[in-house]
Amino acid sequence: MTLWESFTPELMTDLYEFTMAESYFREGLTGEAVFSLFIRSYPAQRSFFVSAGVEHLLDLIPRIRFGSDAIDYLASLGKFSRPFLDYLRTFRFTGTVRAIPEGRLFFTQEPVIEVKAPIIEAQLLETLIINVIQLETLLTGKALRCVHAAGGRGLVDFSMRRAQGIEAALKAARAAYIAGFLGTSNVLAGKIYGIPVFGTMAHSYVTSFPREMDAFLAFARAYPESTLLLIDTYDTIRGARKAIEVARLLAAEGRTAEGRSLKGVRLDSGDLVSLSREVRRLFVEAGFPDVKIMVSGSLDEFSLKQLLDSGAEIDLFAVGTKFGVSADAPYLDIAYKLVAYEGRPVLKLSTGKKTWVGEKQVFRYYDGDGRMASDILCLRDEPPRAPGNPLLDVVIRGGEPARPMESLSAIRDRLAREWTSLPDPYRDIRPTATYPVTISEALLRLEEETAQTRRRDELGEKD
Amino acid sequence: MTLWESFTPELMTDLYEFTMAESYFREGLTGEAVFSLFIRSYPAQRSFFVSAGVEHLLDLIPRIRFGSDAIDYLASLGKFSRPFLDYLRTFRFTGTVRAIPEGRLFFTQEPVIEVKAPIIEAQLLETLIINVIQLETLLTGKALRCVHAAGGRGLVDFSMRRAQGIEAALKAARAAYIAGFLGTSNVLAGKIYGIPVFGTMAHSYVTSFPREMDAFLAFARAYPESTLLLIDTYDTIRGARKAIEVARLLAAEGRTAEGRSLKGVRLDSGDLVSLSREVRRLFVEAGFPDVKIMVSGSLDEFSLKQLLDSGAEIDLFAVGTKFGVSADAPYLDIAYKLVAYEGRPVLKLSTGKKTWVGEKQVFRYYDGDGRMASDILCLRDEPPRAPGNPLLDVVIRGGEPARPMESLSAIRDRLAREWTSLPDPYRDIRPTATYPVTISEALLRLEEETAQTRRRDELGEKD
Repeated sequence: MTLWESFTPELMTDLYEFTMAESYFREGLTGEAVFSLFIRSYPAQRSFFVSAGVEHLLDLIPRIRFGSDAIDYLASLGKFSRPFLDYLRTFRFTGTVRAIPEGRLFFTQEPVIEVKAPIIEAQLLETLIINVIQLETLLTGKALRCVHAAGGRGLVDFSMRRAQGIEAALKAARAAYIAGFLGTSNVLAGKIYGIPVFGTMAHSYVTSFPREMDAFLAFARAYPESTLLLIDTYDTIRGARKAIEVARLLAAEGRTAEGRSLKGVRLDSGDLVSLSREVRRLFVEAGFPDVKIMVSGSLDEFSLKQLLDSGAEIDLFAVGTKFGVSADAPYLDIAYKLVAYEGRPVLKLSTGKKTWVGEKQVFRYYDGDGRMASDILCLRDEPPRAPGNPLLDVVIRGGEPARPMESLSAIRDRLAREWTSLPDPYRDIRPTATYPVTISEALLRLEEETAQTRRRDELGEKD
Repeated sequence: MTLWESFTPELMTDLYEFTMAESYFREGLTGEAVFSLFIRSYPAQRSFFVSAGVEHLLDLIPRIRFGSDAIDYLASLGKFSRPFLDYLRTFRFTGTVRAIPEGRLFFTQEPVIEVKAPIIEAQLLETLIINVIQLETLLTGKALRCVHAAGGRGLVDFSMRRAQGIEAALKAARAAYIAGFLGTSNVLAGKIYGIPVFGTMAHSYVTSFPREMDAFLAFARAYPESTLLLIDTYDTIRGARKAIEVARLLAAEGRTAEGRSLKGVRLDSGDLVSLSREVRRLFVEAGFPDVKIMVSGSLDEFSLKQLLDSGAEIDLFAVGTKFGVSADAPYLDIAYKLVAYEGRPVLKLSTGKKTWVGEKQVFRYYDGDGRMASDILCLRDEPPRAPGNPLLDVVIRGGEPARPMESLSAIRDRLAREWTSLPDPYRDIRPTATYPVTISEALLRLEEETAQTRRRDELGEKD
């Protein structure tokens, strides 16, 4: 059994989910709870989030069951009563999950997911839900920023090797594809998600041959219709001249065999601005203006923009590590908070950690040109101020998926549409404005009443 | 089937590993290759690395086989010849893997792993080896820095929810334990690795009861022998006073029932220095000096040190997100490079990317007090300058594990010993020195000869 085969969703939790559940069970607290998953603040240079990971939850949550293997392990901890363990044997999630569909944009304070279920069920999902949604939301946002910075040029995900695990790499490839990348180098992601896969050669390939030219010719023999040569192993400009020789050979063969041509070259080191310009000039002069120039090496949205602003001649970006771990902002300030129990709104008063109480909905409003104008965060059951577009849909009802799984291409298309409707100031990789999210009067009122009650009951303050 | 059940090690690769392999196969390049896995440079504020992840590779590499599912997928890409796919059907790794054992320290330029095998086999392992070793090395180093900063106080891993995936969370828990944490909140890690698990309650638990005191009493009923109360939901000091009431109740019961006492309290927000001092004062005054104070919330080695330097009264640290994603340095500059093919040393000349050629060994030298003095990086077959401690051992031979798997506790003990032998300047979380790694004369000479040959052959330079 590989490590991953022993991954069972019912144990993808922090221990305290079970110790709290033991206590709820013991106390007979079986009431309905509502939890909100939301992001408190933007990381530096961020101005939006992309909902992502919902489909994974749709797959995982209905599978949560406690078999003897899990029960035996929990029993071995000596922390759980026999009646509680017997309850877990019969556990299944029976509640409702509402979510902002994958590929839609959302903003701070807005619940991307709300779970309504008997409190033990809703509590036990906490760690899994946060883990799944935070990573995919993080990476899809990062990928979208790269797509934006690339200004229409193609991108390929090369992050597999240095992602934080194989699972993270898989999710990075999925995030990249949703955001508009052409595809990924990740073969496993290609197989599991049907994402187009790309890749040609490493420096080790070049150095394993006695001469660079031997390597280039061998690769062209194997892939005459899709030869892309890595040209910086010894010297980029000399490498480019050899690639031109290969282009000439392929073009000569191409007169007899359809489709034979040099597809492109890849640069992975050095001053990519001057080198890409010189390489382009050489190919144009040699009569191969269509040979694609791909670059790789420590790229992210900031370096992409800088390269293009500096006049680099690049057709394709291979984006790796800094995208795959979201290096400049490797986590989100995401939280899963109880907002109502048995219909009673609840909140904590902890310093600097705001939570909006109650079951909520988000409505989105557009201007006359179809551009996103503002969102309103309101209570689920209050009438919307004006006809708007509600963001949260039911995705799990009675513990079962409320609709079929969505395809990646449907999610990708949704995000592409959503992105064109987001005004420029919020799209910039160094955003200059914060998208307006207003709080409905009813929600503000309920929040204040709840805080007052808490301050009175817990802090002894007068009304 | 969950996502993870479809994770098959043979497809945990970048596509180019297969396209290169197709070409090697076609060209009859079956010679023996040596690849080195090493880290080029330290991230900011880093001065050592901890070998970690080797045992996972020992488990995975011998499992790599291509069944019809994988072959069918590769065939569907239209990039591979029938003879090559038939070769993959019979593939197994037959080579040798040498590694620095888990829990030993290593430094930049030193190979943590060397693979020697027919080139296709060694090449196909690249992505998997980098992915596995980089994450666990990254996280174990981060964890060790936290342990050092905690100056003897206990640490628990709370990173599961915001780690970059469930797999990353599992590896963070393992890394934490190897580095000396008491345990983890991660139930799955507890089960898979046998790591002690910890956890008590969330804010949601407190807010689900009408009053904070109701929650505290309910928890004490469920866990009278291990009550640890989260006291900052409404107001930390008022929470502490309620916890003292609980301590009195438990102490009163304790006169009849063995072991009943308040174990501790947790603070998760606010000014942790002043709050922890005030909470300690209250518990001491009330006659409970042994109640443990645990803190959590955005902690890493830097904030741990700052808290302790500022006189915070803390017994236990719950370290989460910033540890779990190694937030200040979320990746390593790690590379897997071909260093020899058919006995011929090879290198690339790419700008700013140094690789040491040939099959290598690292010897470690100690001073008279048993402190690490320096390492020497040398060729594997050169006689050591002086009797020293070689770091790389054979872990896979003929494709099979060369020894039984190591237990986590053996690795943890090894790291504890190793750490005491590392002199202070390199242990500091803001290191003031770089550990000396010298290069043997034979390696320097071979490197220079190889570079000269390359410059002559590829750049047309004269000898």
